[in-house]
Amino acid sequence: MANIANRQWRLISRPQGSLTEANFEFSTHPVDELHTGEVLVKNDLISLDPSSRIWTNAQESYMPPVAIGDVMRSINVGTVVKSLNPKFDQGALVTGLTGWQDYAVMNGDNLSKLPPTPSFEKEVYLTVLSHIGLTAYFGLLDVGGAKSGETLVVSAAAGAVGSLVGQIGRLRGMRVVGIAGSDEKCAWITQSLGFDTAINYKTQNLMQELRKACPRGIDVDFENVGGDILNCALALINQKARIVLCGYISGYNLNKPEHGPANIANMVGKRARMEGFIVTDYLPRASQGYAALGKWLAEGSLKYAVDWVDGLEKAPVALNRLFNGANIGKLIVRV
Amino acid sequence: MANIANRQWRLISRPQGSLTEANFEFSTHPVDELHTGEVLVKNDLISLDPSSRIWTNAQESYMPPVAIGDVMRSINVGTVVKSLNPKFDQGALVTGLTGWQDYAVMNGDNLSKLPPTPSFEKEVYLTVLSHIGLTAYFGLLDVGGAKSGETLVVSAAAGAVGSLVGQIGRLRGMRVVGIAGSDEKCAWITQSLGFDTAINYKTQNLMQELRKACPRGIDVDFENVGGDILNCALALINQKARIVLCGYISGYNLNKPEHGPANIANMVGKRARMEGFIVTDYLPRASQGYAALGKWLAEGSLKYAVDWVDGLEKAPVALNRLFNGANIGKLIVRV
Repeated sequence: MANIANRQWRLISRPQGSLTEANFEFSTHPVDELHTGEVLVKNDLISLDPSSRIWTNAQESYMPPVAIGDVMRSINVGTVVKSLNPKFDQGALVTGLTGWQDYAVMNGDNLSKLPPTPSFEKEVYLTVLSHIGLTAYFGLLDVGGAKSGETLVVSAAAGAVGSLVGQIGRLRGMRVVGIAGSDEKCAWITQSLGFDTAINYKTQNLMQELRKACPRGIDVDFENVGGDILNCALALINQKARIVLCGYISGYNLNKPEHGPANIANMVGKRARMEGFIVTDYLPRASQGYAALGKWLAEGSLKYAVDWVDGLEKAPVALNRLFNGANIGKLIVRV
Repeated sequence: MANIANRQWRLISRPQGSLTEANFEFSTHPVDELHTGEVLVKNDLISLDPSSRIWTNAQESYMPPVAIGDVMRSINVGTVVKSLNPKFDQGALVTGLTGWQDYAVMNGDNLSKLPPTPSFEKEVYLTVLSHIGLTAYFGLLDVGGAKSGETLVVSAAAGAVGSLVGQIGRLRGMRVVGIAGSDEKCAWITQSLGFDTAINYKTQNLMQELRKACPRGIDVDFENVGGDILNCALALINQKARIVLCGYISGYNLNKPEHGPANIANMVGKRARMEGFIVTDYLPRASQGYAALGKWLAEGSLKYAVDWVDGLEKAPVALNRLFNGANIGKLIVRV
């Protein structure tokens, strides 16, 4: 299909510290001809996630690194524009690992059909009804074992996952304390999303405010940031507290972090559990999560915001919004 | 019973950093008369544990602090010398929280009978068949979910708990790597206890040697020390690794630890679990643990060593042996 031009971002070097546009090459190539079983997907929306930064490292994590020279990996929403695979009709809305590019030729793996007549806006399939929503749902309820009446602390609380975690916590009857990095974020999570209280860790004394916000201690810490924020939370954990290690964005741009949370020692006497998890472990139970999330979304109990980026060409620079405090809600590139 | 003189160590001030004899008062008092339901226990052996140091702090942990003016708390083995309680006959061997003193008047709580004709030496009831053995057994197998073929790392490996953990790991078919602070300790755990290998963290490059000792990564880290040792272990954890937080003795004498393990960030992508626990949570299942431990002990598959201290008067000074590297095996005061 030499007549279809495909703009692509390929990884050409591994970032040291924050990634820059220079770690990628932006070039245009014709789309390959389809073989039997393949489909051509036109990307509409690209999800930028903290894990994107991890995938650019050389070190293997829960998925292999993006190889030098490969199109940058991402979870997208797109449309099937041509299909030689009976499972995917032309025009179908799909989601999958179709990368930082206009078009992707897929063999059917790493690609799922979305409901044929979407009852929600497309972006919902990169927010509430996506890996993001499942991360919040299973992370809080399954890994975190959240219970009504408990106190929940969420860091990066105005982020894509954190904002959902806090709302699910409220729906489950928890006291919810959000930690975020601006007054605007704090206002959004308390006034629009119903968090009980919020702390601006950049302008307030976090330890002091957290102590005030959690008079009965912390039962669940949903941790997206790590570092000093995790350290403050660990100082206030209750007996049998759970620390859900969903992310550790304070460390993702550091080549070699210098220190960790000293208060980890507190976990012994408090019999606390800290657990890292990856949402892919819960894919076998995805339908359970989507059912609950879809119901809450339809009835207006779960809200989301999108931090829109217009244009594929802006993807690399936009990714840094997740680490420099600029991002509120889900960061999505409109291709 | 004014005719029975009872020497006692009472806590008179809270230690700042390492405890000293000056934090206690050594004095002699007559034993109180027994009331109905009470028993008089003559202490034979006193267990000194890292938790003893924790109990001298003002902060509540899993048990209340020892109050200023109270006899110092400890788990002992003793003999009933007088009884007004039908559950305890005179002459019975007992174990319980009878403290740093010659005699204790007990109401029957926090006191258990030991087998009437002990088939083992008395000290076994402060080592393999005690809170120590149960800590090793349930910590490794239940909290740690240890499996045959996995790699186990144990810190403070020549200590009372660590030395048993490594042996149980071997009995369960694990590759066992011990970390200890002297060549003598390393020789003991490999040559006498059967650990696969040992690292002297004081004279060797721990990170480098640990990497060599764990060519297939670490599945279970049984952590007694914390700090830099935990940090090195976290660098090598495998997917779904378990870090059993049994103790954190590197921090017990610090008023305010300055930093923690930076590699905790590694737990996210590795979906690792770190869990603090206290052996008292497993007391309902104690008989299961004692059955297994007793069988191994009787058949000679579990060995222990005792670090004997002679004389009640030496208890406070001896406790520091757990923190200054002097201790090998179980630290016990012979009253």
